[in-house]
Amino acid sequence: MPMTLVGAEVDGKPNFLAAAWVTRCNPNPPLVLAALGKMHHTNRGIREHREFSVSIPSADLLKHVDYAGLVSGARTDKSGLFETFHGDLKHAPMAKACGVAMECRLVQVLELTVDELFIGEIVSAYGDESCLTDGKPDVRKLNPFVLTMPDNRYWAVGDELARAWSAGKELVKH
Amino acid sequence: MPMTLVGAEVDGKPNFLAAAWVTRCNPNPPLVLAALGKMHHTNRGIREHREFSVSIPSADLLKHVDYAGLVSGARTDKSGLFETFHGDLKHAPMAKACGVAMECRLVQVLELTVDELFIGEIVSAYGDESCLTDGKPDVRKLNPFVLTMPDNRYWAVGDELARAWSAGKELVKH
Repeated sequence: MPMTLVGAEVDGKPNFLAAAWVTRCNPNPPLVLAALGKMHHTNRGIREHREFSVSIPSADLLKHVDYAGLVSGARTDKSGLFETFHGDLKHAPMAKACGVAMECRLVQVLELTVDELFIGEIVSAYGDESCLTDGKPDVRKLNPFVLTMPDNRYWAVGDELARAWSAGKELVKH
Repeated sequence: MPMTLVGAEVDGKPNFLAAAWVTRCNPNPPLVLAALGKMHHTNRGIREHREFSVSIPSADLLKHVDYAGLVSGARTDKSGLFETFHGDLKHAPMAKACGVAMECRLVQVLELTVDELFIGEIVSAYGDESCLTDGKPDVRKLNPFVLTMPDNRYWAVGDELARAWSAGKELVKH
């Protein structure tokens, strides 16, 4: 799973949570979904303001991201952990240090037993110039990292293998 | 995003779809969510039988997985693409060639505009002996691959970077 930072404003302060159970879930409008344990401090801010952010940190930020997942904003003020910026939304702080960040308007919450699913529409996406090629995110520059469970390991993204929606064409029977 | 094969039985035949918008979404009961475009042939089988599978293919299967995403089961019989096996469920075919496979009972469908979200409870998970270490999936042996969009590229999993819920401990103030 991809490691992300989910951001929200809680009690007037930005708060970020490390989250890997995150996926796009609809192409148009562009929707992203984050499954977050209900106990998380961040969730309250998302529910209150109906806004949140999803940022893609590079492996250089690994320790800070892991810290954001270890320590709850309910007990420790994490508002100084990442310098923040805002886009169009007032309550969806994004982390400047992340190469790509998206601000989202909450459109639906689905409660499960332990987690709740926050589905947000991506209002705007921001990319740091250093992580883009021709205006689009460049994975080599962005250097994201991924999580596996239950071994609980972080991994770099490795070699480029092939083009999607292309590599299988040679198996198509004509 | 992680590349998976979502499997279902459609019109009495196994059908597999390449899917990357897939995530775990609740730890207990263990739930997995797949966001699939509504036009997909596989969806009908999931809705009919309320069962599906999620398998993790290795990079060795990349072309076959990509093919499963290029060609619709509505027009082309893909039932011979992967040799299948069944677990406890009668209508959740899994691909033998995948190192890890999970059979799921559908618990909820959430319709969005283009995609629909299938949330399933993992009834059982199967691992090929060659992909396990001490009975658990071993990423190095499993050799899964990931997808990035919008550049539409497949990537290997790279170097192990750190332990999750651990690497950030040194930032905790005592």
